[in-house]
Amino acid sequence: MAIRYITSGESHGKALIVILEGFPANLKINAEEIDFELKRRQKGYGRGGRMLIETDKVEILSGVRHGTTLGSPITLLVKNSDYKNWEKIMSSEMESLSTKNSLTKPRPGHADLPGGIKYNQRDLRNILERASARETTVRVAAGAVAKKMLSYFNIKVQSHVIKLGPVISNNKKLNLAKLNEIADNSPVRMLDKKAEIEAIAVIDRAKDVGDTVGGIIEIITTGVPPGLGSHVQWDRKIDGKLAQALMSLQAIKGVEIGNGFENAGKLGSQVHDEINFNKAKGFYHDSNRAGGIEGGVTNGEPVIVRVAKKPISTLRKPLKSIDIITKKRIKAAYERSDVCALPAASVIGEAICSWVFVDSLLEKLGGDFMEEILKRYDLYLKHIKGY
Amino acid sequence: MAIRYITSGESHGKALIVILEGFPANLKINAEEIDFELKRRQKGYGRGGRMLIETDKVEILSGVRHGTTLGSPITLLVKNSDYKNWEKIMSSEMESLSTKNSLTKPRPGHADLPGGIKYNQRDLRNILERASARETTVRVAAGAVAKKMLSYFNIKVQSHVIKLGPVISNNKKLNLAKLNEIADNSPVRMLDKKAEIEAIAVIDRAKDVGDTVGGIIEIITTGVPPGLGSHVQWDRKIDGKLAQALMSLQAIKGVEIGNGFENAGKLGSQVHDEINFNKAKGFYHDSNRAGGIEGGVTNGEPVIVRVAKKPISTLRKPLKSIDIITKKRIKAAYERSDVCALPAASVIGEAICSWVFVDSLLEKLGGDFMEEILKRYDLYLKHIKGY
Amino acid sequence: MAIRYITSGESHGKALIVILEGFPANLKINAEEIDFELKRRQKGYGRGGRMLIETDKVEILSGVRHGTTLGSPITLLVKNSDYKNWEKIMSSEMESLSTKNSLTKPRPGHADLPGGIKYNQRDLRNILERASARETTVRVAAGAVAKKMLSYFNIKVQSHVIKLGPVISNNKKLNLAKLNEIADNSPVRMLDKKAEIEAIAVIDRAKDVGDTVGGIIEIITTGVPPGLGSHVQWDRKIDGKLAQALMSLQAIKGVEIGNGFENAGKLGSQVHDEINFNKAKGFYHDSNRAGGIEGGVTNGEPVIVRVAKKPISTLRKPLKSIDIITKKRIKAAYERSDVCALPAASVIGEAICSWVFVDSLLEKLGGDFMEEILKRYDLYLKHIKGY
Amino acid sequence: MAIRYITSGESHGKALIVILEGFPANLKINAEEIDFELKRRQKGYGRGGRMLIETDKVEILSGVRHGTTLGSPITLLVKNSDYKNWEKIMSSEMESLSTKNSLTKPRPGHADLPGGIKYNQRDLRNILERASARETTVRVAAGAVAKKMLSYFNIKVQSHVIKLGPVISNNKKLNLAKLNEIADNSPVRMLDKKAEIEAIAVIDRAKDVGDTVGGIIEIITTGVPPGLGSHVQWDRKIDGKLAQALMSLQAIKGVEIGNGFENAGKLGSQVHDEINFNKAKGFYHDSNRAGGIEGGVTNGEPVIVRVAKKPISTLRKPLKSIDIITKKRIKAAYERSDVCALPAASVIGEAICSWVFVDSLLEKLGGDFMEEILKRYDLYLKHIKGY
Repeated sequence: MAIRYITSGESHGKALIVILEGFPANLKINAEEIDFELKRRQKGYGRGGRMLIETDKVEILSGVRHGTTLGSPITLLVKNSDYKNWEKIMSSEMESLSTKNSLTKPRPGHADLPGGIKYNQRDLRNILERASARETTVRVAAGAVAKKMLSYFNIKVQSHVIKLGPVISNNKKLNLAKLNEIADNSPVRMLDKKAEIEAIAVIDRAKDVGDTVGGIIEIITTGVPPGLGSHVQWDRKIDGKLAQALMSLQAIKGVEIGNGFENAGKLGSQVHDEINFNKAKGFYHDSNRAGGIEGGVTNGEPVIVRVAKKPISTLRKPLKSIDIITKKRIKAAYERSDVCALPAASVIGEAICSWVFVDSLLEKLGGDFMEEILKRYDLYLKHIKGY
Repeated sequence: MAIRYITSGESHGKALIVILEGFPANLKINAEEIDFELKRRQKGYGRGGRMLIETDKVEILSGVRHGTTLGSPITLLVKNSDYKNWEKIMSSEMESLSTKNSLTKPRPGHADLPGGIKYNQRDLRNILERASARETTVRVAAGAVAKKMLSYFNIKVQSHVIKLGPVISNNKKLNLAKLNEIADNSPVRMLDKKAEIEAIAVIDRAKDVGDTVGGIIEIITTGVPPGLGSHVQWDRKIDGKLAQALMSLQAIKGVEIGNGFENAGKLGSQVHDEINFNKAKGFYHDSNRAGGIEGGVTNGEPVIVRVAKKPISTLRKPLKSIDIITKKRIKAAYERSDVCALPAASVIGEAICSWVFVDSLLEKLGGDFMEEILKRYDLYLKHIKGY
Repeated sequence: MAIRYITSGESHGKALIVILEGFPANLKINAEEIDFELKRRQKGYGRGGRMLIETDKVEILSGVRHGTTLGSPITLLVKNSDYKNWEKIMSSEMESLSTKNSLTKPRPGHADLPGGIKYNQRDLRNILERASARETTVRVAAGAVAKKMLSYFNIKVQSHVIKLGPVISNNKKLNLAKLNEIADNSPVRMLDKKAEIEAIAVIDRAKDVGDTVGGIIEIITTGVPPGLGSHVQWDRKIDGKLAQALMSLQAIKGVEIGNGFENAGKLGSQVHDEINFNKAKGFYHDSNRAGGIEGGVTNGEPVIVRVAKKPISTLRKPLKSIDIITKKRIKAAYERSDVCALPAASVIGEAICSWVFVDSLLEKLGGDFMEEILKRYDLYLKHIKGY
Repeated sequence: MAIRYITSGESHGKALIVILEGFPANLKINAEEIDFELKRRQKGYGRGGRMLIETDKVEILSGVRHGTTLGSPITLLVKNSDYKNWEKIMSSEMESLSTKNSLTKPRPGHADLPGGIKYNQRDLRNILERASARETTVRVAAGAVAKKMLSYFNIKVQSHVIKLGPVISNNKKLNLAKLNEIADNSPVRMLDKKAEIEAIAVIDRAKDVGDTVGGIIEIITTGVPPGLGSHVQWDRKIDGKLAQALMSLQAIKGVEIGNGFENAGKLGSQVHDEINFNKAKGFYHDSNRAGGIEGGVTNGEPVIVRVAKKPISTLRKPLKSIDIITKKRIKAAYERSDVCALPAASVIGEAICSWVFVDSLLEKLGGDFMEEILKRYDLYLKHIKGY
C-alpha cells in the first residue's frame, strides 16, 4: 500500500473524520472540490429525512496549506449537524444514562446483533452508530482528494445505476465522455430515461408499503494505463483490491469485474478480448469483456466493476426480531432511514475506486511531489508506446 | 492480519513454495493431510496433460516437528516434477539463451501483455510462469493447514460447482454434513447428477473445438461463530477480506456473498433474514440470504460465497493477438492447458476461505498455542450463549 | 499489529489529531485522564514560550460514549490555541501568499533541508510545521488511552531522566512503586536531588548563551508478563518494535534495552541474568541486565529502555546554514523553541512504550471487549504459574 | 513498505528459507554473489565448530531466470548440511520421540524460557531452534540481493567492529572507499591493527575460561541520496526503520544513529551539523554528527549506525538456571556455540541496512523494472542538483 486511510466517527456523534496518509505534496485541492462530491453523495431519489437536515461540508484540518498539499497527512472532518439533537445520548463524557433508552431490538440485515455479541454491547446503538453508512461521507471526502489527483493523469471514474429493484437500465453504447454529467442529472443515476421512470415508481411503491429497494451499480474508469496491480502475489492483484474495497462498502453483497458472472457461462472464445495494435493507439483489445483487468493487472482498457447492493436493512414496516434483553419476539427497531440509497452508493463506489487507483498508481510511480510523479508518468507512457 | 502468507515459484521452475507466518504452536499437521488436499485440487474432468505428469507432494521444510507446529514459520514446498524437462529454459543461472525461444505472442485473457509492459519483458514466459494458476498448488497447501486448524473448532469449509458453462446444478436442499464427500465423487463437483452429465458433455464439446469452459462455484462454511470480522473499519470487514482473497484467485471475475446479485433486485422485506431465538440454539435467523455476514461480521449462519470463474484463457484454437516484436497480427501462443478447471478452482476456493477464517478467528482469539486458543474459544461460545 | 494509530496536524495549524484503531470496547476513559498526561508533557524546566500559550486539552470526537470505548476508532483532537495568530499563514484555503514570508533558512539538525528536497518545497515552513515535536501532543494522548488500558493489567510505565547534558543522575535503587510520583515533582524528572540542581544550572547556562541541551531518558515498565513479542520472525520481536517506536520520536538518536551499550563490553558471565524459581514468584532472574527482554520476548522482569535525545536543533544563537534560494551562507532561522525538552521527551517516551505494550498484549490476548480480554489474561497468568 | 521478506527454518532443520517480495525485474543477480556474502558471514575469529561443518551455499528457487530477476518473489534456500545428523531429532514427521531427549534447562539470555512459556513448550529445543542466530544466514542472503541492487545506485554499505569486549578500535579517519576491503582482512573486522591484536587476545582468554565476548559495530552507508524516509508519520522515519531492523538481530541490545548517546551529553551548538553549499557538491554539511539522518529523513551524508551486541548467551561454562520440569537449580544447557560472533554480526548488520535502504529507495522511486527505476533516479538526482 502506497497510501492508507482510516475513518472514524459515529453516525450521530460530533463528526466524521478521515486521515489520508501518503498523498504527495503539491497537489491542488480545496474544500469546495470535496464538498462537490459530498453533495453528489447526498442526492438521489428515495433518501430519507436526514439528507434534508445535513448539508455536509468538509473542514480541512491538516495536510493542506493555501490550497496545496504538503505531503503530510490530510485530515478531513465533516460535522454532524444533527449532533446538537443527540448530544446527551451520544456524549463521550461519563454520565449515567438510563438503560431504558437502550436500543435492544436488532434489525435483520444490520451489524446490530453480530456486532452486539462481538463487542458485548447491551445497547445496540453502540454498534449501529458506527456500522451506519453515514461513515461513507468521509470515504467520499477521501475519494474526492483521490479523484482530484487522478485528474492530473486524465483518469476519470464515473458511475451509473444499471439495475434498481427489478428495473434494468438498457444502455447500448455508453457516452464515456459525459457519463457522470448525464447520470448526475438523473434522480436514480440511470442513463436510460424509460427505466428511470419505472425505477422512480418502484421506489414510490416501496415507500408506500414501508419497504426498501437495492440494485446494481456500474463504475467505469477511463484513462487507466496498463500495468497497475501485479500478478506476482495474491495481495497485489488490483481486482482483489477493488473487490475488498467495494465489498467493504455498507450493504454491498457482490462485486464483479466486467461482466464476470455472465461470462462464466460462456465459452473461452466468446469471452476473451482479442489483442490488436495500431500505431496511433498502440496495443488495444477488440472488446472489453475482461473489464480492463487481466491477471490482476490493468490492460489499458476502461476498468469496469459492477457492484450489487442489497435493499436497505432498516424497514419502516419492520421485520421480526428478538429483543436481546427479554428474548421475546418483537419487531425490529426503526430508525429514520432511506428507502433507496443506490445513487449514493454509486457515488461512494466512485470514491472507493478512485482511492484504489491512486494507491496503485503511486505503487507504480512512487514519488513525493506531483511534479516528479507526473514526469515519471510521462516516461511510463513513453515506455508503453515503445513497447 | 493475525497470519500472513507469501507464495513463490514459477510454473515450470524448480518448485512452488509458501511460507505461513503466525500459526500457533501445538497444532497437529502432517504431509499426508496436506497431500490429501493437493490431490483434490488435481482432480476434475477437463484437466490437461500436466495433471498426469505431476502428482503434487508437499515437503515440510520448517515450522513443524514430529507432526506438531512450533509457532515458527511453516514452509511448504511442492516440487515441479516437470522441471527436469525445463531445466535449461528455466534455469536461474546466467547463460545466454537464444531469443528465438522467446514467447512473444500474448494470449488474450492472460497477464502476458499487461505484465510484459509493466515489467518490461520481451519474453512473455517471464510473466506467464508466475501468473499461471499452478501457483495455487501452494495456496491449497497453505489452506490445508488452515483447514486442519479449523477442524479443532468444528468449522468446515466445503464447496461445489453450481454452474458449469450454461449448465446449472439444481440443488434443493444441501446436505451440509456430507457436501464435500458427495462433491468429491463428482468429476465436475456437482451435486445434481443430471447436471453433471450435461456438464461433462459441455466440456467434451469444448474440448473437441479447442475451446474452454468456466462457471460458478459455491463455498459454504459451517460452524462459524458470530463475531468474526468487524464493522468498525473498512479493511476489517470479513466480506471484504473474502472478496479480496477470492478475487485474487486466477481467472476469478466475480464474488458474491450469499445470493448477492439476485437479492439486489428484490425488496428489503424479501431479503433480510428475520432474527429468532430458542434456548437450545440461542439466536438464529429464519433464513440465510445474507450468506452468514451482516455489517462485515459473521452472524452465526453458514457463510456462503459464490465465485464466478471465466473460461480458461489458453485456447487450443487460439484467439487473435499481436506479436510484441513484429507487431503483426498472429494467433496467440498455445501452451498445454486445461479445458475446464472449475472443480480445481472449487477446491482452491475452499483453501482461500479457510485461510481467511483462520485469520479472523485468530484476530478474535489471539494466542500462541492451541490449548489456550481452544480455552478462549470455549469462553467465547459461553459468552454467545449467555448474550 | 493488533492496533494502529495515525497522527496528523501541523504545529501551527488548526489542530493535532490522532485516530486509534483496534482498541477494545468497554474500556473506561475520559478526557480528564488524557489531559492529565498532556499536562505532564507540557511541564519541565527549560521549555519555551509556547508552553505558556497552549494548555492542551483533548476533545474526544469518536469511539467513546458515556466514558466507555465502543470498539470503534477513537479520534482525539487537540486544538492549537496559537492558531488564531497563524490563521492567515497556515490557512488551508487557496490564496496568494507573498513568497517574501517564506522560510528559506534551514536549521541544522532539523528535517528542513532534507524534507524540502524530498517534497520539493521552497517554503520550509511546509516541512517544519509537520516535523515539529508538537506532533507528540497527540502521541501522548494516544498513549494515555493505552496507559489506561495497561492499568487494568497492573502494567505501569514510568520514566525519569538519567542524564541531562553532562549531568548524571545517580540512582542506587529505584523506588519502582512511586517512580513517576517522584519524577513528576522534579522540574527535570531526575530522582537524584543533587543532580537536579546541577541540571537546572546547565539549562540556565545554555539558555544564557542561546544554546540547547539534550540527555538520556530511562523508561521502566513493571508488571509485564513473560511472552510478549516473539522470536519467530524479525518484525515480531518486541525490542525491535520498541526501538522503532522510540527512535521515531523527534530528536531521538539512540535506543538501548537495559544497559545495552555498556554490557557490550563485558563478558557473557557478567551480563546474562541467571534464572531462578520459587513457588511464590514462579520463574524469575537474579538480575535484570537484559532489561526484561530475551530473544525478542519479554521475560517477566521490568522492561527497561534507555533513549538518547540530542539537544534541540533550534538555537537562539543560530548555527550557520545556506539560504535555499540565494545559496548564500546565512544564519539558520530561529523560531521560538525550548532550551531543553528532556522531561517532556520522557513523558512522551512513556506514551510510546505504553502503545507498544498494548499492541503486544492484544496480539497475545486477542479479543474485542475488556471483560473477555481480562478473563484471558487470568488464564494466561495461570498458565505461567503452572508452567 | 515497498518490499517485504519473511524468513523461515530451524537451526538444525532441513534448510533456512527466505522469500523476497517486491524486488523489480531485470536486476542481475546470481548465486555466487549471494554466496560471497554468506561466506563473509561465516568468518571471524572466535567462531565455534559449526562454521567448520557448514559451508553455506544458496539455492535460488524462484524469481530469477538466467541471472535476471523477473519481478516475481525470489526464494532463497540454504541447506543445513548438519541436518543429516539431526534428522531423527528434527523430523517434521509424526513419531513418538522419547521425552528424555527434551531440552529442559533454559539458558540465561536466550529466548528459551520466555519462548517456552509463550508457546507452551516443554522441550525448549522447539524454541531455540528458531531463536538461533543461524536464521541470519538467509537474512544475509536477502541482504546480498539488496546490496546488489544498491550497487546500481552507487550506494555502498560497509561495516567494522569499533569495540570488542573492552577493546576500542581507534580510527581517526576512515577510508570509506575501501572500508570493507580492509575489514574483511581482519579476523575481528577491526581497522586498528593494535586493537585487533588485543581483541584476539580477549577472545582467547574468554575461550579459555568458557566465557563469551560482545561488542559494538559501526555500519556506514555511503552514496545515500537526501530524501529517503519521511518526517510526516512516525512509522515512515528511516531511523525508526533502521532501529527496528537492527534491534531485531539476535543479541543486539542497542542502536544509535551517528554518535547518538555521546551527543546527548553535549550542547546543541556542538552537535548539529552546519549546512554548506558549493556548486560541485550542492548542499552538504560541515560535519556528520547526525549520522546522515535529520527528522527521520536522510540528508545526503553517509548514514552511520552503531549497534551494541551482547556477549553470546550460550556459555561453555554455563550459568545457573532452573530445570523447567523438576524446578531444580541446575546449570544451563550447553549447545555448541561461538565465543564471539561480532564480525558475523557486522556482516549481518550490513545486510539488514541494505534491505532498509532498498525499501526506502523503492518507496521514493516506485517502479517495476530496473531501467525505469534508474531513469527516475537520474531525474531525482537532477532535482536535488537544481534545488
